[in-house]
Amino acid sequence: MAKTNRLIYIPLGGAGEIGMNMYLYGVGPSGRENFIMVDAGVAFPDMASSPGVNLIMPDDRFIQKSLNSLLGIFVSHAHEDHVGAIAHLYGGKDIPIFSRKFTGEIIKQKLYNVGYESDQLTVVKPFPNKIKLKDFSVSFIPIPHSIPESSAILIETTMGNLFHSGDFKMDDNPVLGDSIDYEMVEKACKNDILALMCDSTNIFAKHSGRSESILQRNFDNLFKKTDGLVVATTFASNLARLKTIAVSAKTNGREVCVLGRAMNSMIKAAGDVNVLKGFPSLINPREARRMPREKLLILATGSQGEPRAASAQLSRSSYMNFELGKGDTFVFSSKTIPGNEVAVTSIVNRLVERGVNVIYEDNDDYHVSGHPNEPDLVKMHKVITPKVIIPIHGEVRHLKAHCELAKKTGYESILAPNGTVVEINGDGAQKVDEVYSGKLFLDGTCLIDSKEKTIFDRIKLAENGICSVSIIIDESGKIFDSVWVQSIGLPQKLEGLQADLILEESLNSHISTLDNSIIANDDDLEVSIKQHIAKIFSRDFGKTPVIQVLISRLE
Amino acid sequence: MAKTNRLIYIPLGGAGEIGMNMYLYGVGPSGRENFIMVDAGVAFPDMASSPGVNLIMPDDRFIQKSLNSLLGIFVSHAHEDHVGAIAHLYGGKDIPIFSRKFTGEIIKQKLYNVGYESDQLTVVKPFPNKIKLKDFSVSFIPIPHSIPESSAILIETTMGNLFHSGDFKMDDNPVLGDSIDYEMVEKACKNDILALMCDSTNIFAKHSGRSESILQRNFDNLFKKTDGLVVATTFASNLARLKTIAVSAKTNGREVCVLGRAMNSMIKAAGDVNVLKGFPSLINPREARRMPREKLLILATGSQGEPRAASAQLSRSSYMNFELGKGDTFVFSSKTIPGNEVAVTSIVNRLVERGVNVIYEDNDDYHVSGHPNEPDLVKMHKVITPKVIIPIHGEVRHLKAHCELAKKTGYESILAPNGTVVEINGDGAQKVDEVYSGKLFLDGTCLIDSKEKTIFDRIKLAENGICSVSIIIDESGKIFDSVWVQSIGLPQKLEGLQADLILEESLNSHISTLDNSIIANDDDLEVSIKQHIAKIFSRDFGKTPVIQVLISRLE
Repeated sequence: MAKTNRLIYIPLGGAGEIGMNMYLYGVGPSGRENFIMVDAGVAFPDMASSPGVNLIMPDDRFIQKSLNSLLGIFVSHAHEDHVGAIAHLYGGKDIPIFSRKFTGEIIKQKLYNVGYESDQLTVVKPFPNKIKLKDFSVSFIPIPHSIPESSAILIETTMGNLFHSGDFKMDDNPVLGDSIDYEMVEKACKNDILALMCDSTNIFAKHSGRSESILQRNFDNLFKKTDGLVVATTFASNLARLKTIAVSAKTNGREVCVLGRAMNSMIKAAGDVNVLKGFPSLINPREARRMPREKLLILATGSQGEPRAASAQLSRSSYMNFELGKGDTFVFSSKTIPGNEVAVTSIVNRLVERGVNVIYEDNDDYHVSGHPNEPDLVKMHKVITPKVIIPIHGEVRHLKAHCELAKKTGYESILAPNGTVVEINGDGAQKVDEVYSGKLFLDGTCLIDSKEKTIFDRIKLAENGICSVSIIIDESGKIFDSVWVQSIGLPQKLEGLQADLILEESLNSHISTLDNSIIANDDDLEVSIKQHIAKIFSRDFGKTPVIQVLISRLE
Repeated sequence: MAKTNRLIYIPLGGAGEIGMNMYLYGVGPSGRENFIMVDAGVAFPDMASSPGVNLIMPDDRFIQKSLNSLLGIFVSHAHEDHVGAIAHLYGGKDIPIFSRKFTGEIIKQKLYNVGYESDQLTVVKPFPNKIKLKDFSVSFIPIPHSIPESSAILIETTMGNLFHSGDFKMDDNPVLGDSIDYEMVEKACKNDILALMCDSTNIFAKHSGRSESILQRNFDNLFKKTDGLVVATTFASNLARLKTIAVSAKTNGREVCVLGRAMNSMIKAAGDVNVLKGFPSLINPREARRMPREKLLILATGSQGEPRAASAQLSRSSYMNFELGKGDTFVFSSKTIPGNEVAVTSIVNRLVERGVNVIYEDNDDYHVSGHPNEPDLVKMHKVITPKVIIPIHGEVRHLKAHCELAKKTGYESILAPNGTVVEINGDGAQKVDEVYSGKLFLDGTCLIDSKEKTIFDRIKLAENGICSVSIIIDESGKIFDSVWVQSIGLPQKLEGLQADLILEESLNSHISTLDNSIIANDDDLEVSIKQHIAKIFSRDFGKTPVIQVLISRLE
């Protein structure tokens, strides 16, 4: 007898961190479900836990094992934490990708950058247009966020319907794009949603979210009272914000110039697909350099302190021949993401040292969030009225708080971190299983398991430096010539020719005391040399570097 | 003709960062001043800029060059960022150290830990007691902060008087120790202070600081409504806070147990010098394990996410056989220092995953700051009424904002970051010179210049891994046997025996194509090998590891 179908939900990324979103929805008999994926994003590395790594993405081995069960990937919007992993994990594979037009532009670039054509990609129109894939019928519901054409995903299946919010905010006047079309949502959901998968990133903000449109007046005031050059920074993809600032500048008699690759290419992509309605014309850096300072606004990349972006370079010295100083104003139209505080404040400090007037520090006047605060979530729960709420996109503390909020407003909910298999039916949602979840690191061009020894070894190298010893044993079992020592990353007094020579001498005399039986055995000799070196360093250094012994034998 | 005396101020640490405070005051003819130092503190390393480093301290080469001009060191209080560098930089040297009793206990420990007796140390009573050193007469003015016996330093000189605030807060009921004795301050300052050197860390907090004493009621409420085990964490040295929490627990029927070495040793030191008035009795972990959970409060180290402290261990598994779970409550009675957010929130997430009720997130109810907010600074300026205000302890942005505040309240001020030489006289303060300032890293037991190649090399190792090649050239200029490759910190597919063998083979055949003239020259051969390896890695890895070539010759 054939097993009956079930509807399951499996988060592989984003339900346990802010970043690297990846969610699977499956319909079929247990163990033989077909899946669709919503989003495939990245997170960003840091020196403490992922030195040298380019990007972090969900470890999707669960679905890689049976890729033919993956019917398609739906991308809610073009932020890196929703789209950044697609080309690396699924580029060139026989899996269709669906998105709206602007998101599609970004996906095309990403596929191209790793050497693939974009024939996997299908650009689709929003609801009522639907993509049918076996038991699934999927549509894009436009919803405001901080990048054009963001969408919630309506997933209708033969086993019931789901509403995946994606990242969103409640905004009746989002400056670029449309506010939520409640009629469309009603029509789409028909009061028949089993589960709402809902953004949790801003659960701890207790006040209602503020509209993008309120910033215009503040920027107007800023430009009115400011004389020198003004530089503003925000996320490159926050095109509504760029529009707000640029329109305000133009209105107040300033030309607008954009500095930084990411921002220029976002504006180009958005222009190409016609989602920049009302965006003012820009001047290029050459023209900008000829403008009087009080007639110019620069929009610059690097709001998170990225060391090579325009903002950091402007703070250090100059960028494309623009140099900041007394009389100029620099405004962060952004919130600092946890982990980036030190990088951002060092830009602030350098600018302050140059005499620049810097506006920053959780600046409510020049930034609004793109995510739903607690009262907005309450509203969203009500709009969708699902049987159960499954918090997505957040650390465990966010997901848990979102569950508690659901309880308060009278909804069932389930805490389902990455790897949880949740079965959803008319009775609600139950955890039925667990699958592997974790992280992959893109290191150079290699995808590695985050638990590989690689990273552990690198951190050890970073903390202790390395001392390499080369030793040649001749046919008679004696050291040929002398050992050779070379160190990297040690204090100067322990590194370099002089220090290496002292170590070599000490090693030579140590080895001359060793039994022939030890010298004859590579493993024993290596251990003995390592112990001797460790003893010397522990005396002179108070700790031991990584020690590497290369033994050659003339025989 | 002898030059006339001048009075100068030189910050070497703390005026450019939060942490590693070190301030010099000099009196004498230009270039031949005698100095006193106030504080000699440390800052803490991170993987991004100081991997493997134990502690960061001011580069004091300016004063090390003429140590005999340093008459003495005065320590305002026992926080690491004011006291942590003394033993490393001045231990065992012929320089007297002065502090109050509790601070002295901590200094003794620090001297002992690096192998010195404490005969350098003189414990002194507060004002009106004065230490006279040539042109200086120095006294300690008790002032509330978040550690016992904090003091401002009154520096009377033959060239005028200065008031160095140290870290402080305005608190009329500081729970442990005394509030500001305004009569004493008036008597000490006699309305005759040339310059006020004033704490700037909290300049951006716009509301008046809150008293330590207001927390008692909140903890009372917490204990009243909570059933399970309660764990609270804060800075080990915040003994007033520990007292507040412990008293509240006791009042509400809970025994108190302290977990973590730092906290236990702080309590012991404070007890030894009798500054723990009203501190309740504690039980040891063995007794605590026998208590019902609802009858126990645990005070735990690790409020900043330190991975080996009690809090982190309790979140990961267990600590001294205590394990947390559903029904238990964990409260952060602390503020997260910028840079520690990720470490702290990962503790929170792990505790939430265990079902623990966690109270955190800038929790105003369970934490008050130990530093002066903007309105408190205005008050302090007024109390001292100096000729000029010199902001200390803060990043440049804090110092600058403090200067702007001074301007608003009608005071002259001067922005004087580390290394600035400021001359102070009846006319105010002027920058007259600059001296070297920077950072020293304590790496193991070695003190190194933060700009040494060491750290740069380690970061390179951490980002790229290392590939070492050993090659033996025989008498005839041929490779003897084979090259030997060993890699550390590379992706698994590029590391290990198999990968090394492939690389060795490729190198062997590369070298066999080389001209004898290249093989005969160490430098040329090294360059050629490095280029070849780089080419291979750039193909297979997308980046190049650190490459180390060890060439031996049989001749």
